[in-house]
Amino acid sequence: MNAAQLLAEAYKKSSYQVPGHGPRQIQVLQQALAELEGTVESDLYGKGAVIEDFENKLAAYLGKEKAVFFPSGTMAQQIALRIWCDRKSLKKVAYHPLCHLEIHEEDGLKVLHQIEPILLADKTRLIRLEDVQRMDTEVACLLLELPQREIGGELPEFDELVAISRYCRERGVKLQLDGARLFEVLPYYQKSAAEVCALFDSVYVSFYKGIGGLAGAILAGDEDFAKEATVWKRRHGGDLISLYPYILSADYYFERRKDRFPVYFEQARGLASLYNGCSGVKTRPAVPVSNMFHVHLAFPKEQLEPVFTSVYEETGVGLTHAIRAVDEQSSYYEVSVGDNYGKIPKAALQQAFRTLDEKLQRLASR
Amino acid sequence: MNAAQLLAEAYKKSSYQVPGHGPRQIQVLQQALAELEGTVESDLYGKGAVIEDFENKLAAYLGKEKAVFFPSGTMAQQIALRIWCDRKSLKKVAYHPLCHLEIHEEDGLKVLHQIEPILLADKTRLIRLEDVQRMDTEVACLLLELPQREIGGELPEFDELVAISRYCRERGVKLQLDGARLFEVLPYYQKSAAEVCALFDSVYVSFYKGIGGLAGAILAGDEDFAKEATVWKRRHGGDLISLYPYILSADYYFERRKDRFPVYFEQARGLASLYNGCSGVKTRPAVPVSNMFHVHLAFPKEQLEPVFTSVYEETGVGLTHAIRAVDEQSSYYEVSVGDNYGKIPKAALQQAFRTLDEKLQRLASR
Repeated sequence: MNAAQLLAEAYKKSSYQVPGHGPRQIQVLQQALAELEGTVESDLYGKGAVIEDFENKLAAYLGKEKAVFFPSGTMAQQIALRIWCDRKSLKKVAYHPLCHLEIHEEDGLKVLHQIEPILLADKTRLIRLEDVQRMDTEVACLLLELPQREIGGELPEFDELVAISRYCRERGVKLQLDGARLFEVLPYYQKSAAEVCALFDSVYVSFYKGIGGLAGAILAGDEDFAKEATVWKRRHGGDLISLYPYILSADYYFERRKDRFPVYFEQARGLASLYNGCSGVKTRPAVPVSNMFHVHLAFPKEQLEPVFTSVYEETGVGLTHAIRAVDEQSSYYEVSVGDNYGKIPKAALQQAFRTLDEKLQRLASR
Repeated sequence: MNAAQLLAEAYKKSSYQVPGHGPRQIQVLQQALAELEGTVESDLYGKGAVIEDFENKLAAYLGKEKAVFFPSGTMAQQIALRIWCDRKSLKKVAYHPLCHLEIHEEDGLKVLHQIEPILLADKTRLIRLEDVQRMDTEVACLLLELPQREIGGELPEFDELVAISRYCRERGVKLQLDGARLFEVLPYYQKSAAEVCALFDSVYVSFYKGIGGLAGAILAGDEDFAKEATVWKRRHGGDLISLYPYILSADYYFERRKDRFPVYFEQARGLASLYNGCSGVKTRPAVPVSNMFHVHLAFPKEQLEPVFTSVYEETGVGLTHAIRAVDEQSSYYEVSVGDNYGKIPKAALQQAFRTLDEKLQRLASR
């Protein structure tokens, strides 16, 4: 095993894992199904109580006319952008250079839908109102991701969102919310999901991030939008005869966790301050605005891996399963706080960070 | 409730349902998961033992280098055709006018992939060798569906398949197998899956038809083909973080039923002869070549619905949940034999068909 694999192994074996809700094992599904009668009927190609009840519940929660359940956000968001482009007969949209569609989807938007993205802002910062105002190409839709995951989960202030929304509406530019982590930002904004979504024409939310379900997504908007979205879902091959494993687990963990995000948020702030107390470590954002942040370390990945492995082995506390290189001198990893955090004894957590700090100090003085 | 709904209700309430494996309820998944340890790890975006083991098992079973698990056949087949079209820089394929891609997918192939289908044969019959030989347009790929579901599950003889395959290979036309019901035709051909698949360059099989799983499909071919298929799977939004509910249930029911298709086949022949003994009823094919066939009735759907409802209520045996109009004078429905059939007491089944025959005779003499 190489150093990265040893780190992953030590993480898996640690008594307490700091981020997340727990391992992605099939008991996540078994637990969601355990209390349900076996005679509950499957959904059938998008019809039936299992799927329609959940879609209605989420439409109400998001304050939209209609919601459509999708197997993935990749599918849902390409389709949202396609619908807005078709409405305007203009195959151009705007989004951030680190947008999921730009970096994680093998260019599905371009290859399947022939939609050209205009990249706003740059890889180091959020899209600001000025970026939208200065945009010199006409687009059918602007996609905003809240929080902007790939830069540590930063967020614009709510007032700026309102201003961007107003600006787009005045110019007939549709606004799509990449709300993969929408639940996670509500405590910072002190707004309901519906209040945030009201600024957007269409909204995608995910059920396997903060909610901790298996997979699956909701795309919500007005009635016509949802109708078109279901046609595109069939075209993409996403209108499965049965989506219930994802729907039932999404519903189960949504009910269990939807009110816990203020707790995760506070815990993330506490955890970030523990990190920021360590030598050569800085979180981004310095003070989290959701349950997530990035940990940046002024050391090469190759030096950090054995250090972290030994911290886990000595303290029983696992901090991350992997560390990524930023460049030859520095590294980072992502942290999302979930149910795991509250289960760690305070003393164990403090011991882990003391040990980490000592080892990093030694590393710095080498 | 209207007559069609009353029929569906009576069917649901009947003690014995003749077609299928049983109702599509969540116990199908609960049962598949019941014997598994909760600590089995999820697949992760197409990686991990759960997905790779099943892909390898099916690749071996189908006699192909590599297999890729997909959430749906719709997605798998569009992608197969796209790959072959790209290889030849020719966006034309050939298939039957009642092909799934032509009638059930909202034109995904045309709209997402800009592929033009050439329709071979006509809606009343199979594609024959002559149809392929007479084709005057160059195509990248020919898709054949075995059995041809929408015409009752008819099949070409194996020798004709061999001849079509040879003809296509000589001309550089790729051959894609729509094997949604491949397991179902092996007993008639008296061939292994690998022997049938050897005639094709790429193969799709489904896990919620004869196998009776939840959903999901395998697309198999050579190494390069599979590699490209996984890229397209991500583009379509089908590369979910977790596909295990479909994979584990596919595997469970594949192991349970893969050797039962000769039984279903024999039972389908018996059932068809019971139907053919009824007044005004003919099956297509007259003698089934798989576990499926269509039941054609020389009566209007509106007259049949109350008759069938009363048969179910009087005998406790449910024959079909729905009847479709062919035209104003005649109707049909589809039958697939699965685990249900073997559980019906012979006497009850015979009584049901006697009752049906009597009622249909009365209907004819009205």
